[in-house]
Amino acid sequence: MRENAKDPERHARRMAAKQKVMQDRIARAQNEKGVLLVLTGPGKGKSSSGFGMVARALGHGMKVGVVQFIKGKFTTGEDTFFRDLPNVDYHVMGDGYTWDTQDRQKDVQAAEAAWEIASNMLKDPSYDMVLLDELNIALRYEYLDLDRVLDDLFNRPEMQHVTVTGRYAPKELIELADTVTEMKVVKHAFKDQGIKAQKGVEL
Amino acid sequence: MRENAKDPERHARRMAAKQKVMQDRIARAQNEKGVLLVLTGPGKGKSSSGFGMVARALGHGMKVGVVQFIKGKFTTGEDTFFRDLPNVDYHVMGDGYTWDTQDRQKDVQAAEAAWEIASNMLKDPSYDMVLLDELNIALRYEYLDLDRVLDDLFNRPEMQHVTVTGRYAPKELIELADTVTEMKVVKHAFKDQGIKAQKGVEL
Repeated sequence: MRENAKDPERHARRMAAKQKVMQDRIARAQNEKGVLLVLTGPGKGKSSSGFGMVARALGHGMKVGVVQFIKGKFTTGEDTFFRDLPNVDYHVMGDGYTWDTQDRQKDVQAAEAAWEIASNMLKDPSYDMVLLDELNIALRYEYLDLDRVLDDLFNRPEMQHVTVTGRYAPKELIELADTVTEMKVVKHAFKDQGIKAQKGVEL
Repeated sequence: MRENAKDPERHARRMAAKQKVMQDRIARAQNEKGVLLVLTGPGKGKSSSGFGMVARALGHGMKVGVVQFIKGKFTTGEDTFFRDLPNVDYHVMGDGYTWDTQDRQKDVQAAEAAWEIASNMLKDPSYDMVLLDELNIALRYEYLDLDRVLDDLFNRPEMQHVTVTGRYAPKELIELADTVTEMKVVKHAFKDQGIKAQKGVEL
């Protein structure tokens, strides 16, 4: 389904529209709008950074939606911490679902169900910020249609901030994004020194 | 005062001790220990990532100390969000202090007072994690003695995790760290497109 993403017409249309929107905005010299931020690359800190932004947004009284596109059912610290806070709408892909099978079709279904939730957030201006944690992984495995994802991101409410995390951000997403940070590994305790992965810290 | 940091004897002693500790640990194949994590580079997401780790640690029921080495007295979203949570001991350098002067000596004093607080956290095993936000900036301006900082980090409780953020991490700190991520700018809304910095999102 990645082929779709390379559909030159849709791409050109999206880019032309994006360019026009940007030019209009710059012309108006107003320049306050929702930002699409992508955190990618192999270094550690991508999801943490996304969740730090959630905390900051909550500190500003914003309403935040979180969808975690992670495979496997386990409890992360963020889950425990953010899940029941007011102003946070928190969803984990495959929640309550067993991932023990190696069934690609089930993975696709779970990813699509998660995107359904995300897609609704991206249509709802009451969400000031949406974190799509590890979305890039779902895209990498082609569990989701890239063009649908890009269209939903592009058509979101003007003031809504979105943060997308995960390695291997597709270049079309990088193109659409306003700000992109690539996390580079300078040193890695886990790999270089054989230190065990531990709760509470992202090694 | 940076000269001190290059004192080859202290450096060699620290590195030899570090190497021995690491070798012992690997030999014991135990490999569970506090991690010194450094988040540096020009890309966005360093502080957010540190605060995301704080949230995760809190989600695991850990006790966390935060010292923000930032110049200027203002309220960030993280401040509002984390400050009054149980299990968080939150300090901002120069809190209650006016930074309107261009007085280097006062900056040094404020940084040293903040390090005093950090240093006490780094001696107290009841803190499972310590976030030293923007410490690299205080080191960059040589507001703090690098060797004192490195010694305190090195001598901290064995199981304590520390995250240091900020551009321009000194190479001696990178050497001491277990995990280092460099945030690279791929695209930057603020710079590239003239979008105004906004509350709730780190552009």
